[in-house]
Amino acid sequence: MKKAEIGLVGLAVMGENLVMNMESKGFTVAVFNRTAERVEKFVSGRAAGKHVIGCCSLEDLVANLEKPRKVFLMVKAGQAVDGMIEQLLPLLENGDIIIDGGNSHFPDTIRRTQYVESRGKLYVGTGVSGGEEGALKGPSMMPGGSPAAWPYVKPIFQKICAKVEDGSACCDWVGENGAGHFVKMVHNGIEYGDMQLICEAYQLMRDLLGLSDGEMHQVFKEWNETELDSYLIEITRDILAYQDTDGTPMVEKILDTAGQKGTGKWTGIAALNEGVPLTLIGEAVFARCLSAMKDNRVEAARAYQRVIPAFDGNKAEMIEAIRQALYASKIISYAQGYTLMRTAAKTYGWNLNYGGIALMWRGGCIIRSVFLGKIKDAYDRNPNLNNLLLDPYFRETIAKLIPAWRKAAAAAMQYGIPAPAMTSALSYFDGYTTERLPANLLQAQRDYFGAHTYERLDRPRGEFFHTNWTGRGGDTAAGAYNA
Amino acid sequence: MKKAEIGLVGLAVMGENLVMNMESKGFTVAVFNRTAERVEKFVSGRAAGKHVIGCCSLEDLVANLEKPRKVFLMVKAGQAVDGMIEQLLPLLENGDIIIDGGNSHFPDTIRRTQYVESRGKLYVGTGVSGGEEGALKGPSMMPGGSPAAWPYVKPIFQKICAKVEDGSACCDWVGENGAGHFVKMVHNGIEYGDMQLICEAYQLMRDLLGLSDGEMHQVFKEWNETELDSYLIEITRDILAYQDTDGTPMVEKILDTAGQKGTGKWTGIAALNEGVPLTLIGEAVFARCLSAMKDNRVEAARAYQRVIPAFDGNKAEMIEAIRQALYASKIISYAQGYTLMRTAAKTYGWNLNYGGIALMWRGGCIIRSVFLGKIKDAYDRNPNLNNLLLDPYFRETIAKLIPAWRKAAAAAMQYGIPAPAMTSALSYFDGYTTERLPANLLQAQRDYFGAHTYERLDRPRGEFFHTNWTGRGGDTAAGAYNA
Repeated sequence: MKKAEIGLVGLAVMGENLVMNMESKGFTVAVFNRTAERVEKFVSGRAAGKHVIGCCSLEDLVANLEKPRKVFLMVKAGQAVDGMIEQLLPLLENGDIIIDGGNSHFPDTIRRTQYVESRGKLYVGTGVSGGEEGALKGPSMMPGGSPAAWPYVKPIFQKICAKVEDGSACCDWVGENGAGHFVKMVHNGIEYGDMQLICEAYQLMRDLLGLSDGEMHQVFKEWNETELDSYLIEITRDILAYQDTDGTPMVEKILDTAGQKGTGKWTGIAALNEGVPLTLIGEAVFARCLSAMKDNRVEAARAYQRVIPAFDGNKAEMIEAIRQALYASKIISYAQGYTLMRTAAKTYGWNLNYGGIALMWRGGCIIRSVFLGKIKDAYDRNPNLNNLLLDPYFRETIAKLIPAWRKAAAAAMQYGIPAPAMTSALSYFDGYTTERLPANLLQAQRDYFGAHTYERLDRPRGEFFHTNWTGRGGDTAAGAYNA
Repeated sequence: MKKAEIGLVGLAVMGENLVMNMESKGFTVAVFNRTAERVEKFVSGRAAGKHVIGCCSLEDLVANLEKPRKVFLMVKAGQAVDGMIEQLLPLLENGDIIIDGGNSHFPDTIRRTQYVESRGKLYVGTGVSGGEEGALKGPSMMPGGSPAAWPYVKPIFQKICAKVEDGSACCDWVGENGAGHFVKMVHNGIEYGDMQLICEAYQLMRDLLGLSDGEMHQVFKEWNETELDSYLIEITRDILAYQDTDGTPMVEKILDTAGQKGTGKWTGIAALNEGVPLTLIGEAVFARCLSAMKDNRVEAARAYQRVIPAFDGNKAEMIEAIRQALYASKIISYAQGYTLMRTAAKTYGWNLNYGGIALMWRGGCIIRSVFLGKIKDAYDRNPNLNNLLLDPYFRETIAKLIPAWRKAAAAAMQYGIPAPAMTSALSYFDGYTTERLPANLLQAQRDYFGAHTYERLDRPRGEFFHTNWTGRGGDTAAGAYNA
């Protein structure tokens, strides 16, 4: 019997769909799952008559693979991955490849790459995005790990992944060790931001403008034919039109407490660790946390009895202002995310291809959009672009969006509709484009109470000054604070 | 010769001042520093003729201490603390106490408490706030660690710490292991928030209203006689009046790039890990990061050429609106910080006394203020208060501040003055007091692309539903996603 080109462990929805995808592209796939019935059910069900080899053990799986063996893990991120690596290593030969396609935290992938390489095998940690449908029809894939593994997995990955209109694959080598999972993490953070922005637009239309779900369906349908053309706008359009069996909009029956799996949180933590202001994603993560405090919110809503004043402006104009605010905020979010990747690349020694990343996200994944093509263009124009906001196209675009953005953000503040991501994005933009921020006062405060010293505008950087602001106290600077 | 009641290691500014403080309260203090000249200089200088015993080695220090020995470390947080513990342990007897007064990260203090206790000694990790002047005249102290150590350090700590008007000590036992350093960390995060809010008020007055430093000095002087009465407002008042040798305001010569030591970042990370929306402190930390990107901002300012429109409202009214916005935002920040402490207390098994914490912060430390007395009152009224915003006093206060808060926040958005903390606080308040957030749409999106399931408003919590939104794809839910 023909051996399989790749093996896959973990037959939940994503794993199954990836197998079906690979098989449909001409690959023979060996599959294994901890609970044997799942293998049985899959092989005799969806995979019946396909080039899928059901295996009853890891030994069996390994025996059914071409060399160098490629074992794709779709198991739960965390200890399950480490456990599977431990079980696989003794069964594999030098040069064989373990692939982790789960949402692993990038420091784990850095550690695992080093460990698996130390045992003579190769490791790939790959981001896979696109949800169940993406896994089946072509996900966005972001592989990193052992560079020597790439030539072997490339033919498979670039065949099963999503393609953009011109046929380019939404998968390319991201970088060493944890680079692929880092970029996937930022992707997920951006996804949190994009979803939060859409939610804020929805709430502004629902609670400030009083639009029905049918009307909002129409609005998102129109928006999807503008620069906002994207998967998330598209599914929002469809969700708003979906009716429950009683003929009323399903979305309004759903409990407003958002879940999260932790990748947004990781992105926020990475930004704090790198010292990169990632305000929009931060607000989006916190907005999910706040939504989860439902009982507390109900109590607070009753205590404060806030009433949203009737909207006294032009509805159509405000809808368009919200659209522009959403687009401007989205640009900010991506600019922040890219700044995080640039900074982390320095920290971890990755040589990231920023245009390539935009292309990987251009199709297949949850954040796929026409907009990502504009980002690709910006990095094609200047691969060393310091900040997306400095690219001429984005500068001109933002400049046009500013008045409407301010209008929507000010309305949110005035009427009392929470729009933390849109308003935070505008604050960031205003801060980023301000030559003199008030941090001079902050440095004076720090020097006042903690002798932390400061630099001066009229003196070279790196010269530090301390003022005895009170005329009291010592002249020992805080720099001496060690034993 | 009389033995010392306590030994202190680390004679930088904070260490020296703590020694002078303890000595002035009648304690004899043995001191040691890694570089011997510093001991020499201190003992023959500031400490000449005082009950301070200079020691040339740790052995010497230990030999000069009463039992149970108490060794207070004021060394740089991190490895220096671990190194000092290793050196001290063999020199100490069972029941002796090692105290870490630095800004240690609370997980380190949890680990060190366990380790030192396993070696038969006791451990105290204490927050010390108040800067150099506080250390000298009475800091706020937040001790946690081995409960058995408290009776021995209490007489010293409660003597040297700050006192409020009625004589209450700004120091009490916080809780086991890392509780003291956790509360100090949150204190520092709140300090970041308070400072950022003052900076935003300053920038709104400077760049929107065109006030001079002299005028702003006057404004802060007046504000310090309102509910805002606090140390940070007071020093801002003084800083704005401080002139350089050429007679112009010193603060305007200071470079606007804020430094940070990492405790704000830790607070943000703790909030992300606990799932607590700590938006204001998060924005304050990110604002410092943004300020540090000075070259980038200068480039962006030139690229965008933003002009702040002339302010067309009533200046005095806007100044008062800014004051009220600052106060309301400050309440939000403390409510968020207290929610973080409540949540972490559950995670780590600490029994925190929330009113006591407000009292510890009431005097001596950087965030000391009259306002903290109001928080103490709220927790006296209800020790199990779920959220500060639900306390009747704060509810009524916020209700009065809302119109001015909205006005200032909307102006920041409209005119283009970055006020990320004030606006984020208002978004949080609006979200917190909203019964139905747009997270229903977010859950629908997650179920659409990832089969993540959702709960329904009309069904009990804990019942999860999945909709096949597209009519395509499988019915395997994501919950099955494991091998």
